[in-house]
Amino acid sequence: MSISTYDASAPVFVRGFRVLSELLAKAEAHGGDSLVEARLAPDMLNLAGQVQRASDTAKFAVARLGDVQPPSFEDNEATIADLRKRIDATVAWIQSVDRAALEAGVTREISRKFKDTEHSFTGASYLLTFAIPNFFFHVTTAYDILRHNGVSVGKLDYLGFGG
Amino acid sequence: MSISTYDASAPVFVRGFRVLSELLAKAEAHGGDSLVEARLAPDMLNLAGQVQRASDTAKFAVARLGDVQPPSFEDNEATIADLRKRIDATVAWIQSVDRAALEAGVTREISRKFKDTEHSFTGASYLLTFAIPNFFFHVTTAYDILRHNGVSVGKLDYLGFGG
Repeated sequence: MSISTYDASAPVFVRGFRVLSELLAKAEAHGGDSLVEARLAPDMLNLAGQVQRASDTAKFAVARLGDVQPPSFEDNEATIADLRKRIDATVAWIQSVDRAALEAGVTREISRKFKDTEHSFTGASYLLTFAIPNFFFHVTTAYDILRHNGVSVGKLDYLGFGG
Repeated sequence: MSISTYDASAPVFVRGFRVLSELLAKAEAHGGDSLVEARLAPDMLNLAGQVQRASDTAKFAVARLGDVQPPSFEDNEATIADLRKRIDATVAWIQSVDRAALEAGVTREISRKFKDTEHSFTGASYLLTFAIPNFFFHVTTAYDILRHNGVSVGKLDYLGFGG
């Protein structure tokens, strides 16, 4: 019994982005755009960077699985509203990719270099051992930045069951 | 084209736990057991809580997918070594669950209550929209606690490609 590659990719990212966008809406109401520069350690990415890397991770995962060309983003977001637009643009693009293209990606060979070492993946292993953990890393770290700065968001908001 | 429910569950959790255990080993060398109590906000779980909830999330996901009885843990870990033993015990139990039982869980009805509202999942949707995002939430927040406290770990360590 199995899970479709489409179900394990596009809607997982889209759901995560909806959560992230709602978290950012609450951040905007709480602290405003100064939070865009907030970070948990001097050498970690700030909130803008976490959203940009979430966008890139999902975008490249869908592009590599579906063998399609991803859009280019400039990483010039300076406000919460800008970051939410970046999310909207990423979601719109993901939703434009054909389901069948993503399904076909499960066995596609995908190669990625980390620390000068080339790693070979199948589409499935790339999704499960790189893209999904990396995507939720950035969504979670955005949430953690907000919590650390006193924004009133909770775990159910992160899980998408905050109502 | 599809991904097996087993591949999308047990080994994803086991890989995440290996990453988390290595992060904790570096934390032990850096700051020792005082980090067990570290947290990012007064009303967030500390490092011990993040590891305990990662353990529970994976354990209950495997138990519910596989329709098997999970082990009980006391949540009494007080040192980094204790937390690493908790991870080892969780991994050993996950690896003891039959692959076929997990495969069969893809369409199993799973019901969970959040904020007094009952939510119905299939095995697949429970895994993709609750268990995996929640599991990586706790692994990432453990990492973020360590980074916030100056432990020398990096993104490739989180991704499992730190070498």
